[in-house]
Amino acid sequence: MSTRMSVDFARDTRLEAVDRGLMYGDGLFETLRVVGGVVPLWPRHAARLLASAVRLGLPAPDTDAILAEVRRLADGLADAVARVTFTAGSGERGYARPHPAKPTTVVVVGALSLAGAPYREGIALRLCDTRLGDQPLLAGMKHLNRLEQVLARAEWSDATAQEGLMADQQGRIVCATAANLFVAIGGRLVTPPVDRCGVAGVARAEVLAAGDIEIRHLAPHELVAADEVFLTSAVRGILPVRAFAGRTWQPGPVTRHWQEHWGGIGLPLPNRSKDSD
Amino acid sequence: MSTRMSVDFARDTRLEAVDRGLMYGDGLFETLRVVGGVVPLWPRHAARLLASAVRLGLPAPDTDAILAEVRRLADGLADAVARVTFTAGSGERGYARPHPAKPTTVVVVGALSLAGAPYREGIALRLCDTRLGDQPLLAGMKHLNRLEQVLARAEWSDATAQEGLMADQQGRIVCATAANLFVAIGGRLVTPPVDRCGVAGVARAEVLAAGDIEIRHLAPHELVAADEVFLTSAVRGILPVRAFAGRTWQPGPVTRHWQEHWGGIGLPLPNRSKDSD
Repeated sequence: MSTRMSVDFARDTRLEAVDRGLMYGDGLFETLRVVGGVVPLWPRHAARLLASAVRLGLPAPDTDAILAEVRRLADGLADAVARVTFTAGSGERGYARPHPAKPTTVVVVGALSLAGAPYREGIALRLCDTRLGDQPLLAGMKHLNRLEQVLARAEWSDATAQEGLMADQQGRIVCATAANLFVAIGGRLVTPPVDRCGVAGVARAEVLAAGDIEIRHLAPHELVAADEVFLTSAVRGILPVRAFAGRTWQPGPVTRHWQEHWGGIGLPLPNRSKDSD
Repeated sequence: MSTRMSVDFARDTRLEAVDRGLMYGDGLFETLRVVGGVVPLWPRHAARLLASAVRLGLPAPDTDAILAEVRRLADGLADAVARVTFTAGSGERGYARPHPAKPTTVVVVGALSLAGAPYREGIALRLCDTRLGDQPLLAGMKHLNRLEQVLARAEWSDATAQEGLMADQQGRIVCATAANLFVAIGGRLVTPPVDRCGVAGVARAEVLAAGDIEIRHLAPHELVAADEVFLTSAVRGILPVRAFAGRTWQPGPVTRHWQEHWGGIGLPLPNRSKDSD
């Protein structure tokens, strides 16, 4: 995609090679959708970024300035995706951070065009061999240490699956490589906990805040037996799952409800009756 | 320190902000000591870098070119430390790597001056609250996902300790934030396994290759009861431990033996009889 970028709020495409974001993955990121200059989920992105900065001991990001920068770079784009990277900044060699830390902020914005088919028909999932490590101190955050997701996503390159589910060390399903998981079972909507591994997505937070959701562990066989399955993502919204482990589904009423909710909060998804992508 | 740098073997101090090394910590690094233009442990650094690239599915680094670059940047320095960072390179947004990946190589070199006191008197250790996550797929590698070490090192900023030990999720000691651990107990030299967490240091590999070492888990109380304790680091060599958890030691004959071994392979450590630092 053609991108617009800034580094520390100035037009640039490069940063210091001794930045701790590169050296140690010492930082955080947010990936967000901008519709007509508005970021409907911004309060959740900002809250996660601030809370994670506290957990990592980083200075507080200036979330107002970041939002303004995102909107500036997205100016004129009807639909856009932005990635905000916030690092501990440059420092001497070694794990000890400089005091005071001088963080680095990178914003990258590109036009977004969501294909219609995944929303109408659903996507196929695979179960990744790469399991998530057990690390409560880092769980839930969208930090820059993402090798687990990279390894999981590298497991397949064909079109047989559009996303991969990741299990924890005990084999319980936690989330997809880049999305959270919701499962309708017996009239309840369930999502796995992300307190020992996985990412607490802002789209997941939106569903949790607006619905009556049960947070509990899910075994793969429960997924296969579920009435409906969908993924949530800040950029892609509500993605119906049509196939997993031999089971197939049609997008159902619960999934449709949450797709409509997404449109209602200002994040319209491709119309499910539309034929063209 | 005054540094000399290159990015992809050309004089530069910056890299693309969309490099996957920054975006996802998708890469590896080595930190090595260069004495008079020679890197005595280079074969071990190169072997770890190559083996880790295979594990992560990265293209093979050109280790000959990297060594030549390290030596070029270290030219004229009697003693130097080099950091080599090898990433998956720039790519589109998303966890899927581009095919083919075009890696990025960053080399940073600075003069090294090892203070004498730690080698003569030993260093004090603390036990970090930050525990290492359980992730066999990433264990042992010196990859760019180092938030655990950053959090552990951020636990103290005073001079009461020079290094911190990190335990696994079960509370067993694994390594220090930036060094491996060896313990002399009852005539045996013991080091913990690094197959589920921790880094398999090249200095550790040198000791394992040159000695008769037992690899097994260590509880904190075993450390306190040990005859000798020392840390190993590619840059700092063999560091005697003088204090941990209320116990104190004098540097003993086993530690001295390995310090002499270090001098013998071309990595001289500050003379233990010298008074000045």
